[in-house]
Amino acid sequence: MQNNPRPLDETRAEITAIDQQIQQLFLRRMACAEQVAAYKLKTGDAILKPDREQYLLETLGAQAPDGLRQEYVSMLKSVMRVSRKHQYETILSCEPARLELTLAPRCDQPARVVYQGLPASYQAQAAAAMFPDAKEVSHVPTFEDVFRAVSEGRADAGVVPVENSTVGTIHEACDLLVQYDLHISHSHVDHIYNCLCACPGATLQSVRTAYSIKPALGQCQNFLKEHGLEQQEAANTAVAAQMVAASGDLTLAAVCSEQAAALYGLTVLAHNINDDKTNQTRFIAVSRGLSARSDDNRISLVFTLPHKNGSLAAALSVCADHEINLTEIHSRPLPETPWNYRFYIDLEGSLCDPAVRAMIYQLSEELSTVRILGSYRISDSTETR
Amino acid sequence: MQNNPRPLDETRAEITAIDQQIQQLFLRRMACAEQVAAYKLKTGDAILKPDREQYLLETLGAQAPDGLRQEYVSMLKSVMRVSRKHQYETILSCEPARLELTLAPRCDQPARVVYQGLPASYQAQAAAAMFPDAKEVSHVPTFEDVFRAVSEGRADAGVVPVENSTVGTIHEACDLLVQYDLHISHSHVDHIYNCLCACPGATLQSVRTAYSIKPALGQCQNFLKEHGLEQQEAANTAVAAQMVAASGDLTLAAVCSEQAAALYGLTVLAHNINDDKTNQTRFIAVSRGLSARSDDNRISLVFTLPHKNGSLAAALSVCADHEINLTEIHSRPLPETPWNYRFYIDLEGSLCDPAVRAMIYQLSEELSTVRILGSYRISDSTETR
Repeated sequence: MQNNPRPLDETRAEITAIDQQIQQLFLRRMACAEQVAAYKLKTGDAILKPDREQYLLETLGAQAPDGLRQEYVSMLKSVMRVSRKHQYETILSCEPARLELTLAPRCDQPARVVYQGLPASYQAQAAAAMFPDAKEVSHVPTFEDVFRAVSEGRADAGVVPVENSTVGTIHEACDLLVQYDLHISHSHVDHIYNCLCACPGATLQSVRTAYSIKPALGQCQNFLKEHGLEQQEAANTAVAAQMVAASGDLTLAAVCSEQAAALYGLTVLAHNINDDKTNQTRFIAVSRGLSARSDDNRISLVFTLPHKNGSLAAALSVCADHEINLTEIHSRPLPETPWNYRFYIDLEGSLCDPAVRAMIYQLSEELSTVRILGSYRISDSTETR
Repeated sequence: MQNNPRPLDETRAEITAIDQQIQQLFLRRMACAEQVAAYKLKTGDAILKPDREQYLLETLGAQAPDGLRQEYVSMLKSVMRVSRKHQYETILSCEPARLELTLAPRCDQPARVVYQGLPASYQAQAAAAMFPDAKEVSHVPTFEDVFRAVSEGRADAGVVPVENSTVGTIHEACDLLVQYDLHISHSHVDHIYNCLCACPGATLQSVRTAYSIKPALGQCQNFLKEHGLEQQEAANTAVAAQMVAASGDLTLAAVCSEQAAALYGLTVLAHNINDDKTNQTRFIAVSRGLSARSDDNRISLVFTLPHKNGSLAAALSVCADHEINLTEIHSRPLPETPWNYRFYIDLEGSLCDPAVRAMIYQLSEELSTVRILGSYRISDSTETR
């Protein structure tokens, strides 16, 4: 390290000059990538050639000095990644069928809708907000029953929660999406205002135990602890309300919506008891076919990664290269292979957009497995309350 | 697209020649980065200059043709990212104190160890495997009680599960790590073999209801459904065993370890009932101070991201640039800010390694918040069973 460092402006001017030269070379390299794409379009050859890339990384990497090899190899990897991006786009624009997609028509007015729980549950409210004109709305005891009903054709759309802004992802719904091979067609975000309610005659002093589904209890931890209430799980907020009503027991309370309290004849002891006043839940509707419309604003994918260092960073960089914004990521364990994961990502955009298709084409060719869970529009009824 | 594409070998030769030239320019740019580092070492100036980078991205990006601008901008971003990496490393090697770390001595033989549940729970077994010489081993009813006991100095180490290979992350433990400002000092992976047990005299035909903690029930879904057993939650596997034993009821069963069945005098009705025969759980020990040793093989960090497209991809690329391997990532909602997340990552390595420190220094300077949850060694006693 020198004692009198070079003035910053001088160094920066040199950097800019170097960047101009790198740019010219980079553009010539991309012109070569187009020639490679033309060749591979004709021959049907794969765009990703791991052996060729490995050879370049090793031979060129060996020419970089020790203290700069990591930096150079990272840079070269990103040059190769965007070169492949350019080839995937070029090839897909010539032959759109390279990305195999079987699209079904979007059904915005499903005749038969199913949700888990009971009337006046948050899922019932979400189902009503998403499909106000449904002819037949039914409810079943478990999330899996929802997926089974849609999968077996007994319902046209099934409504389940996938994420809550206080307690996080509802993993069961994500696992079932993969297990039942269904697709997300709609999504809806709603504020969740939990109340504490009990049988007429009960007071905040008389109640000892609060029943609800675990995420709802989780959303009200501070309130429940402050009031010394024991917590017991129920299958659903509305199921908890129904059970408390049936018991007639003045020591029992339910955490649920005010609609559920009213429906089951309970008295509200405390309004909006959430720890987080911004508490919201995102629901999805699942259906049998994958559909897409140009006004969709969300894509959900699930993928597994090749066993290679930096493979998740590379996968997410592919999304960033295509300027597709990531809104959510979570992982779930892969059965029978400890400490390996399936990744779920949500991205902004529509499956009708050629940029999204090119990104999915690249991911499909470069990751171990990729499945499109859905292309859909997130509606938001927070303003209606 | 031309009809007779250029032969692949010819194009590849041109690409290699271009890459050689880009490499020379890249190495000159890194020499400039060293000069910038020398300047900033002297002035204390920040390495990341978002305005300067934005200016370069815009002016140089504007010079790239439309169809190649995304590719060029992605490449330039990675050049800038590895240039910063080189500067962080250079500066940290001159002034190691730039990364503020308060390290406590590692306590491998804590006198007082606490876990959640009851004797013969999996957590009790993990505590015994990690700290066989502990003078005082106590148990408390909840995970939060474990964190509170360590935080308040009533115990020296607290043992909790953080992840199971079948059901995934135990989010509560992760949330509590942040909430109580404790650190991970040890980690231990063990096979989990659940059995179904009941009071003497009970049979697989007489039992109707299975009690256990939710993750353990989740690990045995297929078995429980196949045998038509209703599932009820208990605070812990050993708590479930104790409760079934106390009831004397031949219709009740517990899902727990064979050790728990033996301790509470229950008869094993079915051995190893896990869906996934590779079922394993990773436990951690938490303590008050952050410690590090050169033979640690895991680092855990938690961070929040700046509001910028591609920021997660960039953060994970920083880890990849430093050649630090990511083994796990998961996210949890940030309170009061719907659809924003805190990210937890596990990386291979030790906090004693300068490469790991340089990576953490870069992340600390470039992300919104970064906290080191721990540097520790994962031990594995799967072979001892």
